[in-house]
Amino acid sequence: MSPGRCFGVGVGPGDPELLTLKAARVIRDCPTVAYFAAARRDSNARRVVAAHLDGRHTELALVFPVTTEPVGPARYETLLADFYDQSAKRVAEVLDGGRDVAVLCEGDPLFFGSYMYLHHRLRDRYETEVVPGVSSVAAAGAVLGAPLAARHERFVVLSGGLPADQLDAGLADADAAVVVKIGRHLAKVRAAVTRAGLLDRAHYLEWATLPAQRVVPLGSVGGGPAPYFSLVVVPSVGVAER
Amino acid sequence: MSPGRCFGVGVGPGDPELLTLKAARVIRDCPTVAYFAAARRDSNARRVVAAHLDGRHTELALVFPVTTEPVGPARYETLLADFYDQSAKRVAEVLDGGRDVAVLCEGDPLFFGSYMYLHHRLRDRYETEVVPGVSSVAAAGAVLGAPLAARHERFVVLSGGLPADQLDAGLADADAAVVVKIGRHLAKVRAAVTRAGLLDRAHYLEWATLPAQRVVPLGSVGGGPAPYFSLVVVPSVGVAER
Repeated sequence: MSPGRCFGVGVGPGDPELLTLKAARVIRDCPTVAYFAAARRDSNARRVVAAHLDGRHTELALVFPVTTEPVGPARYETLLADFYDQSAKRVAEVLDGGRDVAVLCEGDPLFFGSYMYLHHRLRDRYETEVVPGVSSVAAAGAVLGAPLAARHERFVVLSGGLPADQLDAGLADADAAVVVKIGRHLAKVRAAVTRAGLLDRAHYLEWATLPAQRVVPLGSVGGGPAPYFSLVVVPSVGVAER
Repeated sequence: MSPGRCFGVGVGPGDPELLTLKAARVIRDCPTVAYFAAARRDSNARRVVAAHLDGRHTELALVFPVTTEPVGPARYETLLADFYDQSAKRVAEVLDGGRDVAVLCEGDPLFFGSYMYLHHRLRDRYETEVVPGVSSVAAAGAVLGAPLAARHERFVVLSGGLPADQLDAGLADADAAVVVKIGRHLAKVRAAVTRAGLLDRAHYLEWATLPAQRVVPLGSVGGGPAPYFSLVVVPSVGVAER
């Protein structure tokens, strides 16, 4: 028996209609659907494709580990690496049984997506294919109705987890920028955007394209914690020149 | 009679299956479909959605101006601005007739897309909506099976049309990068990637996700002109750490 194939399937930013035709087909044709999920929470990726799942699918939830007490960064990295090892093993067991697996991923699988850690562990032993998806970055441009990048511009995507000096350096060279993974870094990111002189055209977005969507000028947002997947967007101004 | 609505519809990187469900629905529901095209060439965006067009659609081809002799940059800018003015006027005439228009755009409409110049001219007078699409950047990651950005990284998208010193500055601060609009800038981009010490992990891609797709190490590509929509991709190495 030949092993199954592993598909990394981008399901887009949240609106179930922003699934691609290919993603819908691959999900329909794969007997097993896998997805990452936080403990005690529904998987966002699964929710996006719920209408495409039926009783024929076997579901494999890959639940991130919970720590009952604070752990340092090194220990946390070890926990995560072990979790991805175990997750890859669970997917591999299905593939070894000759069944194809669709691993669902919010946005695009290889753009800040956890799927890459499975891909990295499985690609040498199994046939893998990635179905690209609409990223939260593209969704942000659409929701704002504002160009992300125009003409000969420099467009930068930064993680909110970067230290302040690296945020400063990244924003200094950019014509337009998106900061992802805002979460508990909102105050730091807002300060960096302000130092870069970009606060007047910066927006804060959470749950873009979903019913809970919220879009506000970054200058009017509080400094408290934000959802992990929220974004700060500084659109292009290049369009005005043409 | 109320005016029609203008939809900027991202059709994805080229593979017709990478259209979103929403894009397919909007195209189906809009009586008029508009698209940019180079003179004497089929529109790439139209080709992607050909299976969704039928005799009920009115098509509006917006054909870029042809110059019969070389023109300087300033004159070219004027020509383009006039062209976008005229194109917006043609779309507005349909909207004024109460008909919705879907403007098709390769990739994502607001990420280096010409749709933005229509959006900019129409959004204050008409109801507009942007349907985000899978960008060529996401497609490049999928085709390579290589992560574009991981963890707390800095991901940069640069235009091949930037001067060499700006390419250098953009690449110097990046953990991973994509250079778009390679075209006649291939030799300059390759030299900048080499100076940045990134040649060994850089790839050259043209027509990603289409039958004519070509993917080669940047180091083994000639210095001649490339298709306008080709890309140079320097993937992330961050995944190896986890």
